[in-house]
Amino acid sequence: MPKYRNDVDAVLRALADPTRRAVVERLSRGPAVVSDLAAPFAMSLPALLQHLRVLQEAAVVTSEKSGRVRTVSLRPGALDVLHLWLDEQRTPAERQADRLGVHLARHPQKENIS
Amino acid sequence: MPKYRNDVDAVLRALADPTRRAVVERLSRGPAVVSDLAAPFAMSLPALLQHLRVLQEAAVVTSEKSGRVRTVSLRPGALDVLHLWLDEQRTPAERQADRLGVHLARHPQKENIS
Repeated sequence: MPKYRNDVDAVLRALADPTRRAVVERLSRGPAVVSDLAAPFAMSLPALLQHLRVLQEAAVVTSEKSGRVRTVSLRPGALDVLHLWLDEQRTPAERQADRLGVHLARHPQKENIS
Repeated sequence: MPKYRNDVDAVLRALADPTRRAVVERLSRGPAVVSDLAAPFAMSLPALLQHLRVLQEAAVVTSEKSGRVRTVSLRPGALDVLHLWLDEQRTPAERQADRLGVHLARHPQKENIS
């Protein structure tokens, strides 16, 4: 499944940088214009735009220009591919614990009254 | 919370490399000795050992030596920190959808019989 692997690769590379992660954390609260996104970082605007480009190429964010203002948003479901990959890495012991949890939820233990 | 941030950083940097991700995928099925881990990769043993060192420093894997054989395992809960970070990045719309899902599960809609 090369597309899936490429998507996982792009998202993980995008998130491996702390500045890009901070941008994602900010955008998880709502869309923001580029100048507001840049404000907390001690870096030039071109450097920040380069980070935004990596996030956009990884399809983690989208952006829209209205007049001279560009607004950046977290793409809905952008991180789903990573949730999926993480779920696949559960070990046999973790899967067994999950199944036990489902079983116990479906069949609550009767209390022993003695 | 600098320790949490450092842990997220180390795990994401470790997983941003496709070889290290393939090692994690292999180890999610169970522990493996280093020579078996190296077999599918067209790289020198020292290069693979370097990748294992990065995974071990990020606390994603652990290893144990018995005689001349080193066995590598996925550390239980190694990826929990990433699950946690991903959950924090859910957008307001996604959180609202989650709350709606919980509400509907608790209060099943009565079917309209007309």
